[in-house]
Amino acid sequence: MKKSIEYFNQNKDQFLQDLFTAIRIPSISSLSDHKPDMLRMAETLKNELLKAGVDKAEVMPSAGNPVVYAEKIIDPALPTLLVYGHYDVMPVDPIDLWKSPPFEPEIRDEKIFARGADDDKGQSFMQIKAFESLVKSNELPVNVKFMIEGEEEIGSPSLSQWCIENKDMLKADVILVSDTGMIAQDIPSITVGLRGLSYVEVKVTGPNRDLHSGIFGGAVANPAMVLSKMIASLTDENNRITIPGFYDDVVEISVEERAQMAKAPFNLENYKKALDIQDINGEKGYSTIERTGIRPALDVNGIWGGYTGEGAKTVLPSVAYAKISMRLVPNQNNEKISQLIKKHLESAAPDYVKVEVTPLHGGQGYVSPLDMPAYKAAEKAYTATFGKKPIPTRSGGSIPIIAEFERVLETKSILMGFGLESDAIHSPNENFPLFNFYKGIETIIHFYHYFAEEMK
Amino acid sequence: MKKSIEYFNQNKDQFLQDLFTAIRIPSISSLSDHKPDMLRMAETLKNELLKAGVDKAEVMPSAGNPVVYAEKIIDPALPTLLVYGHYDVMPVDPIDLWKSPPFEPEIRDEKIFARGADDDKGQSFMQIKAFESLVKSNELPVNVKFMIEGEEEIGSPSLSQWCIENKDMLKADVILVSDTGMIAQDIPSITVGLRGLSYVEVKVTGPNRDLHSGIFGGAVANPAMVLSKMIASLTDENNRITIPGFYDDVVEISVEERAQMAKAPFNLENYKKALDIQDINGEKGYSTIERTGIRPALDVNGIWGGYTGEGAKTVLPSVAYAKISMRLVPNQNNEKISQLIKKHLESAAPDYVKVEVTPLHGGQGYVSPLDMPAYKAAEKAYTATFGKKPIPTRSGGSIPIIAEFERVLETKSILMGFGLESDAIHSPNENFPLFNFYKGIETIIHFYHYFAEEMK
Repeated sequence: MKKSIEYFNQNKDQFLQDLFTAIRIPSISSLSDHKPDMLRMAETLKNELLKAGVDKAEVMPSAGNPVVYAEKIIDPALPTLLVYGHYDVMPVDPIDLWKSPPFEPEIRDEKIFARGADDDKGQSFMQIKAFESLVKSNELPVNVKFMIEGEEEIGSPSLSQWCIENKDMLKADVILVSDTGMIAQDIPSITVGLRGLSYVEVKVTGPNRDLHSGIFGGAVANPAMVLSKMIASLTDENNRITIPGFYDDVVEISVEERAQMAKAPFNLENYKKALDIQDINGEKGYSTIERTGIRPALDVNGIWGGYTGEGAKTVLPSVAYAKISMRLVPNQNNEKISQLIKKHLESAAPDYVKVEVTPLHGGQGYVSPLDMPAYKAAEKAYTATFGKKPIPTRSGGSIPIIAEFERVLETKSILMGFGLESDAIHSPNENFPLFNFYKGIETIIHFYHYFAEEMK
Repeated sequence: MKKSIEYFNQNKDQFLQDLFTAIRIPSISSLSDHKPDMLRMAETLKNELLKAGVDKAEVMPSAGNPVVYAEKIIDPALPTLLVYGHYDVMPVDPIDLWKSPPFEPEIRDEKIFARGADDDKGQSFMQIKAFESLVKSNELPVNVKFMIEGEEEIGSPSLSQWCIENKDMLKADVILVSDTGMIAQDIPSITVGLRGLSYVEVKVTGPNRDLHSGIFGGAVANPAMVLSKMIASLTDENNRITIPGFYDDVVEISVEERAQMAKAPFNLENYKKALDIQDINGEKGYSTIERTGIRPALDVNGIWGGYTGEGAKTVLPSVAYAKISMRLVPNQNNEKISQLIKKHLESAAPDYVKVEVTPLHGGQGYVSPLDMPAYKAAEKAYTATFGKKPIPTRSGGSIPIIAEFERVLETKSILMGFGLESDAIHSPNENFPLFNFYKGIETIIHFYHYFAEEMK
């Protein structure tokens, strides 16, 4: 592994420049006018992988954006890693809050600022560059396959079917993913649990046109107010979700496991300070780590209706909308939950409005066992590069496709993510510290070594 | 009056063309980039008035958009009418719902379709053209002053001060206003009461940036949800407003007067059908006419926060906003009400968010006596042109400046409005039937005649 680390140290600047080239392509999957960028991004990635030393690389069609597939098979008898990542990114609005243009990477305070700097171009490039270091130094100890998709941020709608169609090609011992975070730069951690997701859009329609609020106000139901009442009624005074049946499949965590979790370092004052809030607020009876790790949650991701411009317009809006998502814990079925909220809101709709609930996307939760070889190898790798054993954690975020991999490919995943909470992924001024980018590459190089050993 | 009616009949087409010229200027007062249009509109109006036959016309500066003032004094000993109107219009969004461009007037089904066709370019032009018909036929029986402002749709913030500064110039026996509606084309009515208005913007701030809803969802308060709960709590299950003190100054109408009001023609099935709603919804214990005429109301005019674009973005928004307005009945003080809602929402704000309430604009309610000469003259005029006596009604809408005129100029107003509910003012596809435009001019010509008689 020594030569690989040397190669890595000699090529750090080039690695960064290659990442920057990828960041400059605004590959936003949720906005349809960025389609050409998705294709440009896929081609760029294919060339990156060829440069890194794969035997072959392909931009493969799917029902949606293409999947970039590549592989290097050194010996069919050796173990095989399947690296997963995604080349699509989130939208950038509100654009005026960015301190530098989102698709023009800039280094400030030893951090890369750009959309995708962490999620997931930065983290995918750690994988590619660790692989390159091993190949170019003739130290690659296992076979490697890459599957990098372009629809993760919209819920990977096409990848599941694509995996079914290419199941043989994707055969591997474990799936290696860098798309999660760690507790802090000096507290390495490995995500072993992910929450599921159910995401719906709610449309409340009142009168057939925007009305003058003076002439009709008080006599005709206001859709924005009806929607507000609906949202208000979705959680109770203890911040528990009131949708009938919502908690039916939630597995309560044992007192022992909760005691284990409580040992993870967490400073409430720093947490509040970083977010500039006076107080936190969540489900009664649970800690912040539990609220985001082992408990489901409901959030309004967007709400809009009526006049939202400058000044005062006295309108009684015809329509109001909300995007509502629920984070689910493993064992909760996301499709069942989407149907529960749809039924709950549509059947409770009063006569004076029409309510439509459209499921947008979702995914199952996931739990990763601590005794599999890949976890043990990862634990050794972090211990070697960080000087301390990583903490297994459960993340509040969702990577719906990880649960799908288990179902479709029958393969477990190991989540070696190096993001920080302060990376502001999905937000303005997304960033990724150079420390994490480079430490990630180093740790992944070590992982290959220990993984080969564990699999012997 | 005979020659005036002849002149009117001979010039109907020209009157319409002159109105169209005014409509084509997009004089939207609430959008600051339309400033040049406001000035262009004021100049156009000045020239219109000069053409109509005033002695002098001026575009006079105010603290905001200019006021167009004009006068024709035939004999200082005669009574004087002060005609009020406004040349500004509402924004046009949602623009994609318009069937023809909002500033390109089009006649369809005997109606003028355009922003401002009714409110208030169409109605102001009825006044100008009635005046022109009388002057050109040498039948003008009284002195006339015109005051046409450019800020009515944003709450007339400058006109009150402008009136104070020009009080002597504006001296008149009554103020004549065409900016309201009538019950139906075959049921003439005169508005004798207007609701007041308190309009505020609410801003709820949570974390200092948009957060990833997976990582933070469940642990950090969601401003869009807090705002929804606030809005939900502003009205109770009987649709009564819950702001402490809100109803303190509301004068309950007598049983007799309510019985009088109940005689006004109202067809609930047609009302619902026209709005395409299954049911109405309003304060318990009151009829639809009462809910919009004699009772206050609260409406959300706009709400927004988080991701409102295409697809699904898993964001926990940093900020959420709502525009909330309350329609007030005479005797409720709008400034007091704005302070009540501000105090109520700000003081009830939980620790985990910041709440700011900014009053945007407001105005007092107004009641007009039925025994003043102008009302009697108007009653005779409608009876002459429509063949039946007009019904005195209370409008749910607000013209805050009417109450201000009474306070500042110590002059009552007579509201001769010819709009219909189906005119869709403030909405896409605003329109004004040609019948109403022409019948309005004819009725105003008659009003001059009867007003001179009543004042003798």
